[in-house]
Amino acid sequence: MMTLSLIGIGCGDPAQLTRAAVVAINAADLVLIPRKGSAKSDLADLRRTICADVLTNPATRIAEFDLPVRNAGEVDYHKGVDDWHDAVAATWSQAIENHLGNDGKVTLLIWGDPSLYDSSLRIARRLKRLPTIEVIPGITAIQALCAAHALPLNDIGEPFLVTTGRRLREGGWPQGVDTVVVMLDGGTAFQSLDPTGLRIWWGAYLGMPDQIIMSGALAEIGPRIVAARQDARERHGWIMDSYILKRRP
Amino acid sequence: MMTLSLIGIGCGDPAQLTRAAVVAINAADLVLIPRKGSAKSDLADLRRTICADVLTNPATRIAEFDLPVRNAGEVDYHKGVDDWHDAVAATWSQAIENHLGNDGKVTLLIWGDPSLYDSSLRIARRLKRLPTIEVIPGITAIQALCAAHALPLNDIGEPFLVTTGRRLREGGWPQGVDTVVVMLDGGTAFQSLDPTGLRIWWGAYLGMPDQIIMSGALAEIGPRIVAARQDARERHGWIMDSYILKRRP
Ligand SMILES: C[S@@+](CC[C@H](N)C(=O)[O-])C[C@H]1O[C@@H](n2cnc3c(N)ncnc32)[C@H](O)[C@@H]1O
Ligand SMILES: C[S@@+](CC[C@H](N)C(=O)[O-])C[C@H]1O[C@@H](n2cnc3c(N)ncnc32)[C@H](O)[C@@H]1O
Repeated sequence: MMTLSLIGIGCGDPAQLTRAAVVAINAADLVLIPRKGSAKSDLADLRRTICADVLTNPATRIAEFDLPVRNAGEVDYHKGVDDWHDAVAATWSQAIENHLGNDGKVTLLIWGDPSLYDSSLRIARRLKRLPTIEVIPGITAIQALCAAHALPLNDIGEPFLVTTGRRLREGGWPQGVDTVVVMLDGGTAFQSLDPTGLRIWWGAYLGMPDQIIMSGALAEIGPRIVAARQDARERHGWIMDSYILKRRP
Repeated sequence: MMTLSLIGIGCGDPAQLTRAAVVAINAADLVLIPRKGSAKSDLADLRRTICADVLTNPATRIAEFDLPVRNAGEVDYHKGVDDWHDAVAATWSQAIENHLGNDGKVTLLIWGDPSLYDSSLRIARRLKRLPTIEVIPGITAIQALCAAHALPLNDIGEPFLVTTGRRLREGGWPQGVDTVVVMLDGGTAFQSLDPTGLRIWWGAYLGMPDQIIMSGALAEIGPRIVAARQDARERHGWIMDSYILKRRP
């Protein structure tokens, strides 16, 4: 019997870890830690810090493994993702086989929450031997963003949409909502909108020592965010940011 | 100087508490616990359980207070909410004055996450003496629902909408999305939809000992959820449930 535990670890601050996550990490026979490229090594480091902080079970082993690289040459987006998920699943299977065999509890520490813009659940279902899957929720970037701004996400009784930078850029302001959360924005897709009547709450490196937040009328603050983002990205070599846009109903 | 700390405590399972929440509870001079009506006393009990579990600072005091009742007679919905928030703010101010005076750190334990369908942040801004506000994120019902079903919330790179039962009933399937999260549904608003091609992932009392989850094609599972919900509600005297609907794109 193999159990795969996908544990949400929050999105940058080790204090976001839940008590359930601490218990689950200590219940594992094996914790698998992916090595990312050096630019994003801060991210793998959070996983190591967390293990060093909370792991008290001497029987739990930690193993690092290399993630396959995504084929940037594949023109069909869905085929590219599909192939990559297969490749990641093969790497997981191999690492599990090497370090654990056919039996036991293996754990992956998932950035934020495993259900939000993360493919681990999809990859887990492609493993050679299908494990029992257990999910431990974690604090998402959306919650870290709202907390940093002390911002209620929704208006009273009103809906909100969570979407990606690409979608916002291609589709404009979504129909039927006055609140939009944007994640996975490789750039600053908000620049593609008419800023009239829009406000933004932006945050980068949320929960981390270098957290930056900015908010205000999009017309005024938008250009400053573009500059701050560019600057921070150059300094760190990478950036992770999210934002919320609201329009007057 | 007064600091008000709004601490997300997760939505039913005390193990969902984060390490930051435990630290913040122990940093408080005063923890205010609202007494709810007896039907929902399980909810106030989670707050008491959490304090009993994690409070180690002997200087932290706990005080219970009665929440005002909402005026069900008010026909104007927004005015009703507005008046009620004023009344709650007055109660908070009074409790803080009685138990703490003008100075210190007061804490409220917020169901789920303080930013999601919760008015504490709005109420805090109506306090007589405006405190410094600090928000600690907590696990939401959405995350507990996804975790219980081991369900990825969004499809790859796709958006999702979070809305209320009333909105779904009044507006039908929202435009531009294939994934909808429904909260605050006093009934079973999914019954107002044509179930063809829809799947549902439903959960009640998520994270609690009585957690119930059901999922499948809405046409088939919908009526069973209606029956299970009715039954559970009678047994407990109250119910809290949420669900995710997906349609084939
Ligand atoms: C692949 S998704 C993973 C989301 C994660 N599962 C969660 O629950 O937040 C990565 C996106 O999450 C957001 N994100 C994650 N961590 C962040 C952080 N610390 N600060 C700002 N945004 C963050 C960014 O929008 C980023 O593009
Ligand atoms: C007033 S809102 C509060 C939401 C909370 N702040 C959160 O972050 O989940 C209450 C709604 O949350 C959902 N909810 C909260 N706790 C839940 C639970 N344990 N199981 C199922 N649904 C829950 C239900 O949809 C309920 O109507």
